[in-house]
Amino acid sequence: MMIKDFVIGERITAYLLLKEIELKIWDNGTRLSLVLGDRSGNIEAVVWNEAEALKAELERIEVVKVQGLVGSYRNKTQLTVEKIRPAKEGEYDPADLKRAPLKPPDELRADFMALVDSIQNPHLGSLLRLIAEDEEMFSKFLSRPAGKKFHHDFIAGLADHSLSLARLADLVCRNYPDLDRDLLVTGALLHDLGKISEFEGHLVFDYSDAGRLIGHITMGDHIVANLIGRIEDFPETLGLKLRHMILSHHGELAKGAVVKPKIREAFVLNYLDEIDSKLDAINKIAEKADSKWSEYIKPLEDFLFFG
Amino acid sequence: MMIKDFVIGERITAYLLLKEIELKIWDNGTRLSLVLGDRSGNIEAVVWNEAEALKAELERIEVVKVQGLVGSYRNKTQLTVEKIRPAKEGEYDPADLKRAPLKPPDELRADFMALVDSIQNPHLGSLLRLIAEDEEMFSKFLSRPAGKKFHHDFIAGLADHSLSLARLADLVCRNYPDLDRDLLVTGALLHDLGKISEFEGHLVFDYSDAGRLIGHITMGDHIVANLIGRIEDFPETLGLKLRHMILSHHGELAKGAVVKPKIREAFVLNYLDEIDSKLDAINKIAEKADSKWSEYIKPLEDFLFFG
Amino acid sequence: MMIKDFVIGERITAYLLLKEIELKIWDNGTRLSLVLGDRSGNIEAVVWNEAEALKAELERIEVVKVQGLVGSYRNKTQLTVEKIRPAKEGEYDPADLKRAPLKPPDELRADFMALVDSIQNPHLGSLLRLIAEDEEMFSKFLSRPAGKKFHHDFIAGLADHSLSLARLADLVCRNYPDLDRDLLVTGALLHDLGKISEFEGHLVFDYSDAGRLIGHITMGDHIVANLIGRIEDFPETLGLKLRHMILSHHGELAKGAVVKPKIREAFVLNYLDEIDSKLDAINKIAEKADSKWSEYIKPLEDFLFFG
Amino acid sequence: MMIKDFVIGERITAYLLLKEIELKIWDNGTRLSLVLGDRSGNIEAVVWNEAEALKAELERIEVVKVQGLVGSYRNKTQLTVEKIRPAKEGEYDPADLKRAPLKPPDELRADFMALVDSIQNPHLGSLLRLIAEDEEMFSKFLSRPAGKKFHHDFIAGLADHSLSLARLADLVCRNYPDLDRDLLVTGALLHDLGKISEFEGHLVFDYSDAGRLIGHITMGDHIVANLIGRIEDFPETLGLKLRHMILSHHGELAKGAVVKPKIREAFVLNYLDEIDSKLDAINKIAEKADSKWSEYIKPLEDFLFFG
Amino acid sequence: MMIKDFVIGERITAYLLLKEIELKIWDNGTRLSLVLGDRSGNIEAVVWNEAEALKAELERIEVVKVQGLVGSYRNKTQLTVEKIRPAKEGEYDPADLKRAPLKPPDELRADFMALVDSIQNPHLGSLLRLIAEDEEMFSKFLSRPAGKKFHHDFIAGLADHSLSLARLADLVCRNYPDLDRDLLVTGALLHDLGKISEFEGHLVFDYSDAGRLIGHITMGDHIVANLIGRIEDFPETLGLKLRHMILSHHGELAKGAVVKPKIREAFVLNYLDEIDSKLDAINKIAEKADSKWSEYIKPLEDFLFFG
Amino acid sequence: MMIKDFVIGERITAYLLLKEIELKIWDNGTRLSLVLGDRSGNIEAVVWNEAEALKAELERIEVVKVQGLVGSYRNKTQLTVEKIRPAKEGEYDPADLKRAPLKPPDELRADFMALVDSIQNPHLGSLLRLIAEDEEMFSKFLSRPAGKKFHHDFIAGLADHSLSLARLADLVCRNYPDLDRDLLVTGALLHDLGKISEFEGHLVFDYSDAGRLIGHITMGDHIVANLIGRIEDFPETLGLKLRHMILSHHGELAKGAVVKPKIREAFVLNYLDEIDSKLDAINKIAEKADSKWSEYIKPLEDFLFFG
Repeated sequence: MMIKDFVIGERITAYLLLKEIELKIWDNGTRLSLVLGDRSGNIEAVVWNEAEALKAELERIEVVKVQGLVGSYRNKTQLTVEKIRPAKEGEYDPADLKRAPLKPPDELRADFMALVDSIQNPHLGSLLRLIAEDEEMFSKFLSRPAGKKFHHDFIAGLADHSLSLARLADLVCRNYPDLDRDLLVTGALLHDLGKISEFEGHLVFDYSDAGRLIGHITMGDHIVANLIGRIEDFPETLGLKLRHMILSHHGELAKGAVVKPKIREAFVLNYLDEIDSKLDAINKIAEKADSKWSEYIKPLEDFLFFG
Repeated sequence: MMIKDFVIGERITAYLLLKEIELKIWDNGTRLSLVLGDRSGNIEAVVWNEAEALKAELERIEVVKVQGLVGSYRNKTQLTVEKIRPAKEGEYDPADLKRAPLKPPDELRADFMALVDSIQNPHLGSLLRLIAEDEEMFSKFLSRPAGKKFHHDFIAGLADHSLSLARLADLVCRNYPDLDRDLLVTGALLHDLGKISEFEGHLVFDYSDAGRLIGHITMGDHIVANLIGRIEDFPETLGLKLRHMILSHHGELAKGAVVKPKIREAFVLNYLDEIDSKLDAINKIAEKADSKWSEYIKPLEDFLFFG
Repeated sequence: MMIKDFVIGERITAYLLLKEIELKIWDNGTRLSLVLGDRSGNIEAVVWNEAEALKAELERIEVVKVQGLVGSYRNKTQLTVEKIRPAKEGEYDPADLKRAPLKPPDELRADFMALVDSIQNPHLGSLLRLIAEDEEMFSKFLSRPAGKKFHHDFIAGLADHSLSLARLADLVCRNYPDLDRDLLVTGALLHDLGKISEFEGHLVFDYSDAGRLIGHITMGDHIVANLIGRIEDFPETLGLKLRHMILSHHGELAKGAVVKPKIREAFVLNYLDEIDSKLDAINKIAEKADSKWSEYIKPLEDFLFFG
Repeated sequence: MMIKDFVIGERITAYLLLKEIELKIWDNGTRLSLVLGDRSGNIEAVVWNEAEALKAELERIEVVKVQGLVGSYRNKTQLTVEKIRPAKEGEYDPADLKRAPLKPPDELRADFMALVDSIQNPHLGSLLRLIAEDEEMFSKFLSRPAGKKFHHDFIAGLADHSLSLARLADLVCRNYPDLDRDLLVTGALLHDLGKISEFEGHLVFDYSDAGRLIGHITMGDHIVANLIGRIEDFPETLGLKLRHMILSHHGELAKGAVVKPKIREAFVLNYLDEIDSKLDAINKIAEKADSKWSEYIKPLEDFLFFG
Repeated sequence: MMIKDFVIGERITAYLLLKEIELKIWDNGTRLSLVLGDRSGNIEAVVWNEAEALKAELERIEVVKVQGLVGSYRNKTQLTVEKIRPAKEGEYDPADLKRAPLKPPDELRADFMALVDSIQNPHLGSLLRLIAEDEEMFSKFLSRPAGKKFHHDFIAGLADHSLSLARLADLVCRNYPDLDRDLLVTGALLHDLGKISEFEGHLVFDYSDAGRLIGHITMGDHIVANLIGRIEDFPETLGLKLRHMILSHHGELAKGAVVKPKIREAFVLNYLDEIDSKLDAINKIAEKADSKWSEYIKPLEDFLFFG
Repeated sequence: MMIKDFVIGERITAYLLLKEIELKIWDNGTRLSLVLGDRSGNIEAVVWNEAEALKAELERIEVVKVQGLVGSYRNKTQLTVEKIRPAKEGEYDPADLKRAPLKPPDELRADFMALVDSIQNPHLGSLLRLIAEDEEMFSKFLSRPAGKKFHHDFIAGLADHSLSLARLADLVCRNYPDLDRDLLVTGALLHDLGKISEFEGHLVFDYSDAGRLIGHITMGDHIVANLIGRIEDFPETLGLKLRHMILSHHGELAKGAVVKPKIREAFVLNYLDEIDSKLDAINKIAEKADSKWSEYIKPLEDFLFFG
């Protein structure tokens, strides 16, 4: 049963994400104040017993099995927890907890390899294959999100976004023969590579220390620069151009670009990234909108129209 | 003979654009100081005789037939004019004077009609056909520039840019089924329609009064709004969305957008317009660059790399 | 009885604005959560019975007759509704519900005509008379607000603001003989004309679709451009200047101006509009301030001093 | 004879402003390179003899008597000086050299006193009279410019601007009974008072050290604060409000305001100052414009229309 | 007992800051809603009896003696007041109520005098001694805060910040022989002098009217300018430079600087002020942070890392 | 003989920097147009014979031996070259050509090692020693400039700036015990390390491709990250903090920072870098200023005062 279907007055048992946990001091002792969630939404929950021991047991746990009574407290639905324990892998379906990848990992992997095979430049092909062959790196690429809140904030969001962007880049090149198609497609696939280390957690995402102190753009550039160093005869200028595209893909310094775009493919990558990110964010807003106008969207400083 | 091939010391006869004309008072009377141009560049010229009479005769003339002696004055090549008169249509090939359209008007017209035929929405189709059937409007659309300096600043630049953008829009829709393809393609074709009245002149372009006081975005919206009013049963919301795309296609208020984008197609149109405009501008810069780095490009506040 | 005079524990009967209505799911069924208002303020209200049927009946209703018990819920006064139904026109005085126009419609109309009669330019006079003769347009002009929140957010706020601005323009011209007084006064009267279609509702205002997608500046310019087209021999430059004033009256692109001011009257109109709008907003803030310093005013990012 | 009437080949004698003076080392010794000016424009001049001695003699001299030959050097008119000496007061008419005040000092003084007499608030009246009675301060107020380049950059420009602004303020108050007319008029008269020390020179203006290091706003506030201190029982809040108006009259911190406007009169003063300054600047541009469009005006980042 | 040690269910007696006081109308009459505080935090409190009389008695009182019962109301600890009266000086230790100065006034005074004695420039030395000899001014300098919220928001925060900055300035000069050490140290001591009048209150600080209408920079400059006027033969340029440093120490107009830095010492003072202010603010954030990352810090628009 | 001492009419022989070289087509053939320079300034030069052959020979040459005649051409001194050839190392003293390092390489090396020895953190010490032991990297660090135009634009400017900044950092830590002195000093030494590859050339500097496409911040971070990877047990958080300081030392994204400062030492490094850079730039401006006010300084958008 999903959170959105909880009925006040009923007793439920469910596997839920443990998103926040806080120990609160109360008149007669302590209690745990939790935020639990699944794909359909979040719910506040309270545990009245053995709060301190449970706090220790649940620290760093992402998924819990919970039994409790759905009630209401000050106009908000609240779950009074009767039983709670860490969930075991296999007991639950992650797709219930988090917007699932549109495709299973195998298909994402196949899509990636199909794009790699379409690359005619041997150096760029080698570079992409090095990534695909690095099991640890590639499995992260196929499972991490591309954002925490605004867009592609789901399992495999990074792969979903990168592959969509690469397909878009391929289409756009058909209109502009001057664009280096292999370079643009490779840049699209790798532009957010640093995000494999920007977030921590498998279902509940938060920034890693390096994610905040170094940033995903520099982390991605660093990985790519070192991989290029392992490929014999990788043309120096080609390497600079690819790294330049990663470093400049936010378009403007004030938006986080490390350098401003200075080659055709870098300008195009920036605008296409805006399109792919914004359309995913708009889709997410559209799902929530219950009239022809959305609510006020803070990052856009505007309302959106779906009439 | 093109200006770039003028050799110092030789006498030339040529049809050239008359870009600037100024009467100068000199020790012994008056002279005319001219800027003449063709596709290959500009040259300063001087007329020592009958300056005042010639000034009156050449006012508002765009193309002149000139005979003169190529010399050099303070390190710059300068033409001393011996004979000059307005050129007659048919005597010269406009394509020598101004970057020619990539395609002749008939092909541009055919490309436009092919795109119109691909539109399945009957209302949008009717709207586009109204434009194609308005001889005066459509012939301007097929011949005016889309810019004065930075991009598509040539005969038929408006049609070239609008058609390229529409083709790009069509390609991009293949990656995003949620986009309304007909709306986006129509918006691409019409987004700069107001530019048919923004500039004056046929070969030497300058802003019209309305171009500066009203602006091409409002002029284009006004035309489209009135055309929509002539189509029976044009759905009100569809009309608002199309006009909204024209009004918002500069993306941000500070960049000249009248309203900010509020629908998917408006966001995408803005980014695609950036791509098509910038790639044309970069191509123009690339032609001039004689090393792997361009000179400093003021509108971009940067150097471009062509290495 | 006004909302500000409601006493906890008493039973009231009143005609009130229905500002928000939401159906809430509750333990034992559904209830309606309302926001009701009059000139003196807003109050939250709750209806426990027949919520769903009432929701349907009250949809799009602006004024209701309500009977209920004033109570308090979590430190806020709350009305428990016993009876509620749509109010009929004539039962209540709109001036109790919304800050009333300072003058009745007839006086506003007379003020407008007096200003029109003071215009010596025959073309501008004709234009203004066309508006006064269009019953539908003119009655909207005499009744709509000029803003939703910050200034002139009341019935006939548009006329009040436009007439005040025109009187101010007339005064200012006495200090500057170079200003075209008729043009400036006409621009003042028409600068916000598009607001007749920017908002929907008669007593409870909200943006119309066109208000957000097209914007009041473009809508106003469109009306004026079409009216000018109906006047024989309207001088082209005069028309461009008047439309330019409407399009530029926000002063800067980033503040919503479609083009920047380029003539004397456009610069002056922008600053006078700032004065008239800001003074109305400050008066509204002054009414609420209960000490010499106002609370923090977000749109001004500052506190105001009334000491 | 004015500079604009100089004819190449003729010998002239004239009283001119000495705007710049520089000693240049040349093949065969030294020469003086000068910029001379009058109301009609500037001209470059060269002195070939006794350059070093003349340099010393002319240092800090504002007006010179010059005899020389008008020639042309690289397309620019140039004066070859034969005789040059400091001019004596009384030999020339300052009004030939610099745009004259619109009114003689006595009329400016009378206008000021008339405004003072219209002030009913006794404290503000006393303050203004203190200034009028301080001969040194008041004669500067009646003779200094209000700007170096963009507006009111002429003798008595400060008084001209301040009086015009005060008259404008008086007119505007007729439309807004909530405004404190005496406070606004006084603020208008005193808002730029610090400019009496911002510039040095009587006919050729340049910033003083204090003008750049301290700024005219702070200097004006300092004078007013000290004068207020000399008036018995000057109400504290009234003094704060008047100083606040001086300190905030640039409207925004980024435009040089020391604090943002926080009272009605401060908001209005800022916008009226914009109107009076900009209209004077536009008049100056209009005088130079020789077609319906001005040249590009850098401080406005735009062209102006005078059609 | 400090607020952070209050235990729900216990009765306490304490001396506390009275930070806010509001009379609320309630079902059965009126109550007082208070915010009380000490160094360890704030607590909401309620008084049910004689609310109106107490309101009058406690107006403008900063410290109260309170007896009451600690309870909890909607998840927040709340004090139900049984007795409350103004505290008398001497009954309580201000250091319990507000972060205490790091050093007692005598040591601050000694530190100041030691710095004064290190100044070799006799004029700057005289100026600083004038301040130290003005009992009223100097005691304010030794006791006022330097900020209301972000940094040095405690008793003697102004002296603490100014002395720290002066010591820092002295150290920095050892690396740059071109800096005028006496000028920089004096500027550091006096840069925030106007803050002696920016805030009102001894333990509970709020902006004074002048603090908001005039601003501390202008107030400080005004004091210094008048003191300089009292010192015979104070070099004019030295005075301008010192005042310039005060007026420009915020670095940029948009950050509140009255003029931009134009001398070496003004640039350095601005950056050193940023260092000293920011490090104090960061220390305050560090005290509250309970993990390696701080919460989101609004004025910095970022998270801070203490790992 | 230095360029500033060249006398018109004399024949000179000198070793000069070859800063620009361009082949120009002329009436009777070709000529070379050069810009030559030394520490005292630049001079334009022209070669009339064998222009094409010389162009090829001098390409990529930084220092030339020149014999020629000093003349004047249009008010500017110009050198007519009679003989020119590449200079051989050892023939000339580089210190004549370019502002010399304040200290010889050995002293810079010794200063660096002294600072390294003062570092107590063994990991940071090891890191700095790795750099000192890498002959190629370290010799670049000791000889490259830190800027192209505004500050430290001379041989060894990078070392000069980095060492000065480290000494400053050390001094500042004495005032703030909470600062990690070793971390701050190491960050100061390494913050601009990437500049060893940002510029090309030994005496005439220009940006390298990587300098523009990747940027010195990313290049420096990349070097440091890889060196850290070679040191056993380098604490992960320490490494992140040091890299974070390099990546954030420009303070704001819009000024080129890759991430915003998030630790104390990063904030301080940013402000100290501003001080050291700006003071060097001001010293350079001071050298050129010939009155108490500098000319207008474009990067500062202001005049500087040296009175």
